[in-house]
Amino acid sequence: MTTVSRTQNPDNSAAQRDEDPAFALHRGGKLHVNSSVDVNDHEGLSLAYTPGVARVCDAIADEPELVDTYTWKSNLVAVVTDGTAVLGLGNIGPEASLPVMEGKSLLFKQFAGVDSVPIALTCSDVDEFVETVARMSPSFGGINLEDIAAPRCFEIEARLRERLDIPVFHDDQHGTAIVTVAALQNAARLSGRSLADLRAVVSGAGAAGVSVTKMLVDAGIGDIAVADSKGLIHEGRDGLTPVKRELAGISNKAGLTGSIESALEGADVFIGLSAGEVGESVVSTMAEDAIIFAMANPNPEVHPDVARKYAGVVATGRSDFPNQINNVLAFPGMFRGAFDAGASDITENMKQAAARALADLVGDDLSADYVIPSAFDSRVAPAVARAVAEQARADGVA
Amino acid sequence: MTTVSRTQNPDNSAAQRDEDPAFALHRGGKLHVNSSVDVNDHEGLSLAYTPGVARVCDAIADEPELVDTYTWKSNLVAVVTDGTAVLGLGNIGPEASLPVMEGKSLLFKQFAGVDSVPIALTCSDVDEFVETVARMSPSFGGINLEDIAAPRCFEIEARLRERLDIPVFHDDQHGTAIVTVAALQNAARLSGRSLADLRAVVSGAGAAGVSVTKMLVDAGIGDIAVADSKGLIHEGRDGLTPVKRELAGISNKAGLTGSIESALEGADVFIGLSAGEVGESVVSTMAEDAIIFAMANPNPEVHPDVARKYAGVVATGRSDFPNQINNVLAFPGMFRGAFDAGASDITENMKQAAARALADLVGDDLSADYVIPSAFDSRVAPAVARAVAEQARADGVA
Repeated sequence: MTTVSRTQNPDNSAAQRDEDPAFALHRGGKLHVNSSVDVNDHEGLSLAYTPGVARVCDAIADEPELVDTYTWKSNLVAVVTDGTAVLGLGNIGPEASLPVMEGKSLLFKQFAGVDSVPIALTCSDVDEFVETVARMSPSFGGINLEDIAAPRCFEIEARLRERLDIPVFHDDQHGTAIVTVAALQNAARLSGRSLADLRAVVSGAGAAGVSVTKMLVDAGIGDIAVADSKGLIHEGRDGLTPVKRELAGISNKAGLTGSIESALEGADVFIGLSAGEVGESVVSTMAEDAIIFAMANPNPEVHPDVARKYAGVVATGRSDFPNQINNVLAFPGMFRGAFDAGASDITENMKQAAARALADLVGDDLSADYVIPSAFDSRVAPAVARAVAEQARADGVA
Repeated sequence: MTTVSRTQNPDNSAAQRDEDPAFALHRGGKLHVNSSVDVNDHEGLSLAYTPGVARVCDAIADEPELVDTYTWKSNLVAVVTDGTAVLGLGNIGPEASLPVMEGKSLLFKQFAGVDSVPIALTCSDVDEFVETVARMSPSFGGINLEDIAAPRCFEIEARLRERLDIPVFHDDQHGTAIVTVAALQNAARLSGRSLADLRAVVSGAGAAGVSVTKMLVDAGIGDIAVADSKGLIHEGRDGLTPVKRELAGISNKAGLTGSIESALEGADVFIGLSAGEVGESVVSTMAEDAIIFAMANPNPEVHPDVARKYAGVVATGRSDFPNQINNVLAFPGMFRGAFDAGASDITENMKQAAARALADLVGDDLSADYVIPSAFDSRVAPAVARAVAEQARADGVA
């Protein structure tokens, strides 16, 4: 059992668990492994197991690519974490992260028919994580990285992508980014603008902040500045991590320095991906027809009711307000598409294609309260999968 | 993709695959991950995933043992291999081993309701294997080691048992041993003998040979000698591996040397766990009322029709002859019992208890053609599980 030092939450008690429907639902876990084959007699056993199975193994040993046809590997994702950045709970360790990973697997299956298995690791550093995933990779068709603290998450993903010939995707980065880019494209369209017409400010330079910024730069946003807890990130700032230095090089063309508040004055877009609050007095200084994505959970950086007083479009991470930025809109279709195409990688183009497909589903129904489809819109995963598979072929990774 | 050097099997062709029902059955793989929870609306999503799931994670972070109640971990086995000794195919690598591992998972579920996931590893040595499994162990309630070459399998199991607080079980060793001991107890009983009355000879000092011998010594067999490809193992033999040296210390009280043929003269029991043939002229020298377990697959060391000319009881590994020694009789109930008791280890006593439970099921129906229950006897897994769970509590590991 991994022990993680933390302060006990006084709300956690057996009495509270008895009353909370989330605990009733989680009893016994959320996943099962089942077989499509029933073995009821010696003949069935001799096909599904020895001696019949030996012929299948032997054929794969001779033609390795047959593993994709005769095992579940090519439809199987490992949902891998080290439990260092679980939801807003922080570093709670691998065991305590398992309910989230099971939830992820549940959504993979339900939304896109993708099989997946939670793998929560005890790892002390990046090397151990990368080695462990690489060693288990023969069993899986893809790797979904989940809830890994920044900045280690960036290096882990980069090294695994380099090393493995199966898709590797850190959902906290790119799932969020794909949905954000899609929603922002539509929000811009609503007021007759394109991304090139917008100046955006991002709060948070963690996994999501970095990927959102990179994707928006690639998608042609006018300008975008990112703030972390020390203020705006710019090329002249000392002590930047390698990832933030890279960010400084591609963002903040205007060379803004200082606080996020100063950057928001006259800005067209606010993208909140941290827990930091933004006051009404600051929001009120943004440009006309501003776009506010306040995605901190459960408490958005600006309350949507306040944001709506100043902004043309408001989105949050919550399901009880319009325009929920939910990465379940992206990751199931992303792997479905990669698997359908037999892709060996997930390219930048594939993520942009996913964002465009998501944005396009809104079509003529576009309104201030509808810039992104609902998580339960059944068109979503197939549309994303189609676009991703097509782009994989165009990019030569399938 | 792991590449393993081997000679192409000329029988492997697309035409052969089209005709073989084993390939039709394996298309798309044999396993699926499903959820017991349907998420059809925002409320369901908010319980099974964020924000509800965060409360479950938080509770586990505060009370780590809650992971057994609120995730699938406590019913989940990792079926782990490195593909170095797959069935009779040898070192075919991790990918080609997957159909066997999926078969194992299928049987775990069907026979004992145990969820399991195949994990085929690319590992170059024992250290890597042990480290990798230890790092992923937070996700699993037990580890079933499978198809790992001897002697590395012994060290891997010993080190993982030492290191982890969940059951670790190398089925090729102990599954086979449990069923063999059960069948031999009944075979002895049929002629009014006990294990103490028997002198046995084992052919093969691999995973199964070593474990069978140790279990029979523990169970009180009169004497037992083991032969490998170089002849009988005895304390005076040079160049023994550590495992064979240990075997020499606990077996072969008579100090037999030389060939397996000489040891079989007058022996009561032959246990074949290698591919080596034993000729009729040798079998004919065994004691009256001999017991022959010729378990090589698909070709028994002695053909059962020949063995029956000299032996009172004959068993094989095949389903088309009586008395099939099939480890599906052991491993599902073994993990079911360990999980039911919440056991942290699988002790020697637990294996012996499993063997006794298996033997006892035969009861008054005992005959020369029925010394061990059928793989499809639905009493088997529950009886083994009950005995194993009870013994776990008695041994203080649950």
